[in-house]
Amino acid sequence: MRVDTRWLTREQLAAWVRLAAVLELLPTALDSQLRRDAQLTHFDYYVLAMLSESPDSTMRMAKLAETTTATLARLSHVVQRLETRGLLERVPCPAVRRVTNARLTEAGWRKVREAAPGHVAFVRDNVIDALTPDQITQLADITQAILHRLDPTAGRAGMYQWYDSPEPAD
Amino acid sequence: MRVDTRWLTREQLAAWVRLAAVLELLPTALDSQLRRDAQLTHFDYYVLAMLSESPDSTMRMAKLAETTTATLARLSHVVQRLETRGLLERVPCPAVRRVTNARLTEAGWRKVREAAPGHVAFVRDNVIDALTPDQITQLADITQAILHRLDPTAGRAGMYQWYDSPEPAD
Repeated sequence: MRVDTRWLTREQLAAWVRLAAVLELLPTALDSQLRRDAQLTHFDYYVLAMLSESPDSTMRMAKLAETTTATLARLSHVVQRLETRGLLERVPCPAVRRVTNARLTEAGWRKVREAAPGHVAFVRDNVIDALTPDQITQLADITQAILHRLDPTAGRAGMYQWYDSPEPAD
Repeated sequence: MRVDTRWLTREQLAAWVRLAAVLELLPTALDSQLRRDAQLTHFDYYVLAMLSESPDSTMRMAKLAETTTATLARLSHVVQRLETRGLLERVPCPAVRRVTNARLTEAGWRKVREAAPGHVAFVRDNVIDALTPDQITQLADITQAILHRLDPTAGRAGMYQWYDSPEPAD
């Protein structure tokens, strides 16, 4: 046993225990809602939603993996499953050899459009509407700081910052 | 499609996307560290750690499920696995009929003591030390608010609040 351990203070422990409880409960709750209402996992939904917001509903697989913070292996597995269900398709990139794109199909579009309102309502009920505007800003800063530690490469590439661009989304 | 959807604002979306990325990355990172260093999942560790802080290293199974925010079914499965490894044992409650207690064994104690310094260092590196003291307080309040939505019963029972008691821990 190391003798130089810096144990957590009571304040740090309180924050950590609660964050750990959120990590335990929230992903399960998100999956349950989306499975019940749209026959999708949260990760499935996230993949489809990211595609739906890209030009031509198309992204390179490697970029999609980055954006969804998944390994390429995990993403490939999920994309294959969604492709079998007809919600997206993999196509060779017309511009770059040996690069594969994922593209939302019409059925995939319908799925996202149908699932989005219920999912957003769920996220509001369980997370967003529980917080004050100040807490929303704090949460964005706190999660950004944690992500920089967990995934410094992504942080440098600014991948969690693309929502910060000053232009309105539509 | 419902027409009254309250879509997320840009600020809310930024916070939500980053929290979702933390939900995706952090549990995997915690599991990897503990599997590598102690042959435990994060949930295994949490169960053992909660027992180690209880009087006589013993808790009722139902209470342990509450504390770890697990269903009794999930907890039973994990406890059975840890019992097979000799890290804890299930014993009938001496005080209440038909109640089962979980109790840490000597080997379980050693496991927690050996795993704790490395795990705390990991939690510091990836979460706690990335945040200012103000952000620690903000995170405790934000996660508390989310937990009240996700699990109102536990919120009422104050189960996430037992770290707030004014007495020092030791």
